[in-house]
Amino acid sequence: MKTILVTGFDPFGGDTVNPAWEAVRTLAEHKHADYRIVARLLPTVFDKSIRLLKQYMEEIDPDVILCVGQAGGRATFSVERIAVNVNDARIPDNEGKQPIDTPVVEDGPTGYWTTLPIKAIISRLKEKGIPASISHTAGTFVCNHVFYGLMHEIAVAKPGVKGGFIHIPYLPEQAAQHPGQPSMALDTIVNGLVVTIETALATSADLVEVGGNIS
Amino acid sequence: MKTILVTGFDPFGGDTVNPAWEAVRTLAEHKHADYRIVARLLPTVFDKSIRLLKQYMEEIDPDVILCVGQAGGRATFSVERIAVNVNDARIPDNEGKQPIDTPVVEDGPTGYWTTLPIKAIISRLKEKGIPASISHTAGTFVCNHVFYGLMHEIAVAKPGVKGGFIHIPYLPEQAAQHPGQPSMALDTIVNGLVVTIETALATSADLVEVGGNIS
Amino acid sequence: MKTILVTGFDPFGGDTVNPAWEAVRTLAEHKHADYRIVARLLPTVFDKSIRLLKQYMEEIDPDVILCVGQAGGRATFSVERIAVNVNDARIPDNEGKQPIDTPVVEDGPTGYWTTLPIKAIISRLKEKGIPASISHTAGTFVCNHVFYGLMHEIAVAKPGVKGGFIHIPYLPEQAAQHPGQPSMALDTIVNGLVVTIETALATSADLVEVGGNIS
Amino acid sequence: MKTILVTGFDPFGGDTVNPAWEAVRTLAEHKHADYRIVARLLPTVFDKSIRLLKQYMEEIDPDVILCVGQAGGRATFSVERIAVNVNDARIPDNEGKQPIDTPVVEDGPTGYWTTLPIKAIISRLKEKGIPASISHTAGTFVCNHVFYGLMHEIAVAKPGVKGGFIHIPYLPEQAAQHPGQPSMALDTIVNGLVVTIETALATSADLVEVGGNIS
Repeated sequence: MKTILVTGFDPFGGDTVNPAWEAVRTLAEHKHADYRIVARLLPTVFDKSIRLLKQYMEEIDPDVILCVGQAGGRATFSVERIAVNVNDARIPDNEGKQPIDTPVVEDGPTGYWTTLPIKAIISRLKEKGIPASISHTAGTFVCNHVFYGLMHEIAVAKPGVKGGFIHIPYLPEQAAQHPGQPSMALDTIVNGLVVTIETALATSADLVEVGGNIS
Repeated sequence: MKTILVTGFDPFGGDTVNPAWEAVRTLAEHKHADYRIVARLLPTVFDKSIRLLKQYMEEIDPDVILCVGQAGGRATFSVERIAVNVNDARIPDNEGKQPIDTPVVEDGPTGYWTTLPIKAIISRLKEKGIPASISHTAGTFVCNHVFYGLMHEIAVAKPGVKGGFIHIPYLPEQAAQHPGQPSMALDTIVNGLVVTIETALATSADLVEVGGNIS
Repeated sequence: MKTILVTGFDPFGGDTVNPAWEAVRTLAEHKHADYRIVARLLPTVFDKSIRLLKQYMEEIDPDVILCVGQAGGRATFSVERIAVNVNDARIPDNEGKQPIDTPVVEDGPTGYWTTLPIKAIISRLKEKGIPASISHTAGTFVCNHVFYGLMHEIAVAKPGVKGGFIHIPYLPEQAAQHPGQPSMALDTIVNGLVVTIETALATSADLVEVGGNIS
Repeated sequence: MKTILVTGFDPFGGDTVNPAWEAVRTLAEHKHADYRIVARLLPTVFDKSIRLLKQYMEEIDPDVILCVGQAGGRATFSVERIAVNVNDARIPDNEGKQPIDTPVVEDGPTGYWTTLPIKAIISRLKEKGIPASISHTAGTFVCNHVFYGLMHEIAVAKPGVKGGFIHIPYLPEQAAQHPGQPSMALDTIVNGLVVTIETALATSADLVEVGGNIS
């Protein structure tokens, strides 16, 4: 049986709920004969989030790791393609830290590609009726920070593990308080995560399909 | 027992589903001790749509009428405030008609306000966690056409009836085919329609609350 | 020689400049053998703005009247089609008044169409390389208020006068302070106003061209 | 005297003009005592564009290199932060090639940071009233391709050269044909390029200022 580690964050920036954690803890109740899901909460805090992630990776020894974060203002379930080695916080994190233009990992490479089969995942999500897209930037706040920390740990210590980052829209009840913003139902997000996990488990070589952006 | 007439349209413009009709026929299964819901399909066709609407109003004699239409690209459940007396079709309707700058009703007034209590409805939708907003334009295609036809018929023949128009986003399965577009789950839309109906039934004088736009 | 009255507003809502007034006073320096332009500043204040507008109409006796306002967030030079009889202020005006759901003119009609030839104007603007569109809502703040006041005055006292409202984007120097917002250069806006005036003067019957919105 | 190489692309994707080349060749007429600007046209073609860029770098031996490209739909003058080692073409290039998920440079690193002082540049652009922002993705088409090729060449053969990529909005005359899209006047773009060049020449260590994105 395969083991899947899925993480979500606590609320930040004035919101009282984080859809990532809501989705992840709901997902943890999803049962399947071939795999088990372990959900963990990460704090929206630089460095501490990566320390905890590494500790959970050690304890749980997962085959697939999905970190999930809120991207308020985006309309789709988006699969991040690349993590970059910079912290550049527009607002303070949940412990008041606001690093600007520092590396996530001293002397780490500029970026890491996700090891998820993103084209196969997007193709399957669309077939299942879930609005999805590939994203080429996870920002420069704690989401990208954790994503980079994850891919670095996989690169140096966990070869072969499939890992990546998913950005999700506001939940409807959040968007009701952010006038005009798009949202996605919790069910749709959770289904999207199941599709992502199952496609990652089923895919050895990724599809070669159009998925880029002109700019 | 009160009677509610709710209408949706058939698909148009290359889509194979119309979320308005999906929502309306799902809504029709909603049972309540105080009111009954009657759902009717309208064609996305100028004039014929209004003729049918008037026929259904005659047959069903409703206390509240909601016409529902798709607004691909919008992110929220939006309650239209005003219908205007112009047809200006950017694409042909489902029978190939494309009127440009003609009146909906010859010699009708420039516009009609909805008779729904829009501020109370928006306030209640937000409380219930449904992303909602007031819209000041229903466009100039068949949606506005039917909305104007509805309000004109209420004005000339059905005084006291509460009527209005709701524009809804794409369903997730549609947005999966329209890259980057926002969507709303069918459940959320149907809940929004129930809230709209129940607030219309419960409200005699509308709230006075901020709800306008600067531009 | 024809006389053109063009109005702009003073700054509001925290901005220190109003592009409408910048454009209008620059436009006033434009000289032409066939017409003269008179520029007037209006305060961003309910009622007082209309009183002043009527006074200027009386004094100047113009053949064409353009009222111009800022629409922060819009990307194009937009020609408003309809003024509606409601004040619904999301923020206070420059004297602290914030009317909610009151009429602009007691017992006035629901709406007034602009008397500008909007399809001819948009067509000409595009030919001249100016990004332009028809708008079906001027909002519910002081811009729509003045637009409604203008069209009401034309309807009751100045038959045959061509009047309308133009909404313009931020200037580049404003957008530099509103991250991510679109802007338009002052020159482009002024050229757009000249094209609007000259098309209004040259057009007796408007074109019949596609220009509507689906929703 | 310093030498600045600035490149623009030929039109692609159905447009008949490319604002990048229009801006770059206008910029070439800008005279200054301290530096001279050399403008070169690049084809919107994978590989050939990089070959030509390297040839121009050899011939001209510049101190600063700016490659400029069109980002239709963006509202601001945007300074790209990172080039990534992937070609993923959503449409064919101008010679019909459409690489999908191939590297720009075989065995190159995942990404390269620009060597422009981006925070100082953005700060100065805003002071000068030019709407500007940092971008964390240059897409995956020929723009990112050339940007990666540039930074790779600097890394392996031209240490100390300041190089980067600027994405610009549509020109007004283009946006007039792309309804609703934002635009920027040619003058504003050219001024933005001058500010970028002069800030690059004047800055030894970049500012540490907030400039990141949450997602």
